[in-house]
Amino acid sequence: MSFDFNAFVREDLPPAAARWTGFPAYNFVGGHNDEASVPVEALRAAADAVLMREGSNLGTYFLQSGPLGYRPLREFLCAKLKRAAAMDVDPDEILLTSGSLQAIDLINAAMLAPGDTVIVEESNYGGVFPRLARAGVEIVTIPVDAGGMDIDALETALKQLDGQGTKAKYIYTIPTVHNPTGTIMPEERRIRFVALAARHGVPIFEDECYSDLIWSGERPPALHALDREGLVIHVGSFSKSIAPALRVGYIVAPWAVLSHILSVKHDAGSGALEQMVLAEFCATHFDDHVAGLNRALEAKLDALIDALDEHFGASVEFERPPGGIFLWVKLPEGVETTRLAEVALAGGVAVNPGREWSKGADAGRWIRLCFANPAPEAIRDGVARLADICHAEFGTPEIGANRRRAPS
Amino acid sequence: MSFDFNAFVREDLPPAAARWTGFPAYNFVGGHNDEASVPVEALRAAADAVLMREGSNLGTYFLQSGPLGYRPLREFLCAKLKRAAAMDVDPDEILLTSGSLQAIDLINAAMLAPGDTVIVEESNYGGVFPRLARAGVEIVTIPVDAGGMDIDALETALKQLDGQGTKAKYIYTIPTVHNPTGTIMPEERRIRFVALAARHGVPIFEDECYSDLIWSGERPPALHALDREGLVIHVGSFSKSIAPALRVGYIVAPWAVLSHILSVKHDAGSGALEQMVLAEFCATHFDDHVAGLNRALEAKLDALIDALDEHFGASVEFERPPGGIFLWVKLPEGVETTRLAEVALAGGVAVNPGREWSKGADAGRWIRLCFANPAPEAIRDGVARLADICHAEFGTPEIGANRRRAPS
Repeated sequence: MSFDFNAFVREDLPPAAARWTGFPAYNFVGGHNDEASVPVEALRAAADAVLMREGSNLGTYFLQSGPLGYRPLREFLCAKLKRAAAMDVDPDEILLTSGSLQAIDLINAAMLAPGDTVIVEESNYGGVFPRLARAGVEIVTIPVDAGGMDIDALETALKQLDGQGTKAKYIYTIPTVHNPTGTIMPEERRIRFVALAARHGVPIFEDECYSDLIWSGERPPALHALDREGLVIHVGSFSKSIAPALRVGYIVAPWAVLSHILSVKHDAGSGALEQMVLAEFCATHFDDHVAGLNRALEAKLDALIDALDEHFGASVEFERPPGGIFLWVKLPEGVETTRLAEVALAGGVAVNPGREWSKGADAGRWIRLCFANPAPEAIRDGVARLADICHAEFGTPEIGANRRRAPS
Repeated sequence: MSFDFNAFVREDLPPAAARWTGFPAYNFVGGHNDEASVPVEALRAAADAVLMREGSNLGTYFLQSGPLGYRPLREFLCAKLKRAAAMDVDPDEILLTSGSLQAIDLINAAMLAPGDTVIVEESNYGGVFPRLARAGVEIVTIPVDAGGMDIDALETALKQLDGQGTKAKYIYTIPTVHNPTGTIMPEERRIRFVALAARHGVPIFEDECYSDLIWSGERPPALHALDREGLVIHVGSFSKSIAPALRVGYIVAPWAVLSHILSVKHDAGSGALEQMVLAEFCATHFDDHVAGLNRALEAKLDALIDALDEHFGASVEFERPPGGIFLWVKLPEGVETTRLAEVALAGGVAVNPGREWSKGADAGRWIRLCFANPAPEAIRDGVARLADICHAEFGTPEIGANRRRAPS
């Protein structure tokens, strides 16, 4: 086996993947979920019922539903998005995708050409920045605060772009359980946001993939629901509410947009069995399941916050999020979290360094801690170990601790 | 809903998709399969067993298997590819994908840059030509005959490219149940093919997605099995052998290649439930199922050939394929199949026009007829209607018919 493929791959590829060696002992990264909350019994029943009734349809591409995806799941989404997010949607305005990542990639493939400009939140889902870099587009970043995207700053940016004769291709936003800050944009700000985008004639790309995970169970109307012009492309997912390894997401958009997005979807459809099982499951179990999942997630968040209080004390800063699966934590001055993530991983603790999730000036002081997957004991032990590693690398903070650390 | 998205999509997009209006009455296109052969009962049992045992693993991306995909399915493939195609493969040399179309797209994304050259068979899977056009590469076409790719012509082309100082990125081939001709390349030609590619230092991209569908059940060694250099990238699929709506394909390649391909797979994994159910099903049912499926497919092929004999007589030419789901049929002189496909579709009969499946000089006289999906009566009725439409459009052939057509 001597053939050298290096001359045959593209010169501009990302670094080759490393071999997978399993999950770290303390896994605070990734959108993994609470394994104990996966509704295994109900999924078994759903799989059995839908295969018995419609299994032979698997013999045709697209079942009997066409390239938008399994129609009963699109119909479930119409009802759910109406109930939960005040959205009025027709099943033919929904495209089921292989996770919301494919949704993002399809929208970008249909809309973005090198040299284009897009507007994004300054702190953001870490997968967005490399995608936009690969697309060769310029990004304009807008700060976020406790209410999500800063609309004054957005207005300034839109005016500046207008002045330059540049029209952004879209404004990408995560208004509900923002990633990584966990905030929820209030309704008044949403109304202003949509009006501003309409005034400047710029589409909004609304990513709502965490919006089912809210402790109170209440969610403001989606931007899509507040839009009268048809300028919002809305993306969601079942990965966070049911199970991440089920790769089912969706795009909601006017047919005039979906028809373009479909023209770049060359995969002969997304996985039908997962769509069928989800539709069967969701029809009767979705709300109860999500309520139970949220209770489990909130308990894990509490365990994480307790562990941070115990092992980092007041040296770290964070806001308790109203939902989601991650906590955005600011470490003391002098800590560089890119380095911390590296040494922590070597010590068996995986965390997301802030620079991958934010373009903010102080990004290097932040980490994102995902709390859905580790058990409560692993959360406690992992935070203790992270604190040991952090203090060994950067020193014990002299000020700000609200209690003395136990000797380790 | 007045917002105009036209200024926001890329200028070079394909035409927008049309709304889906259901399948045509007589559907001789697409890789659809025999719905009666979908092993519904065994899939139900497999889904139930694997969800009960491992369902909670759906709570993590990649289950416990890493980004190459569900390990038990990769292990099944190692045993199956050894048994059926003489391939020696390690599970870490297999990447599970969302159908073999994602496999093709990932390989192209990792290897092809605009201006590159690739070598392809002149008659070919219809999805390959537009993909290569989108990638912006030059194609060199090689004729095919009853043994598949013409290796003398390939040698001439490779020498010509060498003379120009051009190294092709790969030679794409479908050696086993070639699409659309249905031929199987004999072993001696395979040996010569691999040696020639090695001598010229050009990778082979072997697409074996139909290779389980052979009436005799016997298949020559894969090109991958005959290669001692590690220059073959091998692609396969479960779409044809189990069900097309299950989107599970795979790439077999040395890790040095797979690690690059993984670096452009940005989807957080392909659908896990489909991989789990397939692994559970295939472990005990694969061979029996495929044998039964092949019997059903061969019976449909016979029905198609009988219908062609009855309604077209000797005015059409074809070779009875040793496997697969399609028949490649040459129509009489004077027929232009691009036009025929258009008028036939208007009459409820869908066929693939030759120009989409071949760059050959006489491509406009060929059609591809897929026979796996329609019931035998629909095959008979559809061919009768196709003959009526063809004769109405292009006239009844004066010569060559081996029997008089019944009045319609």
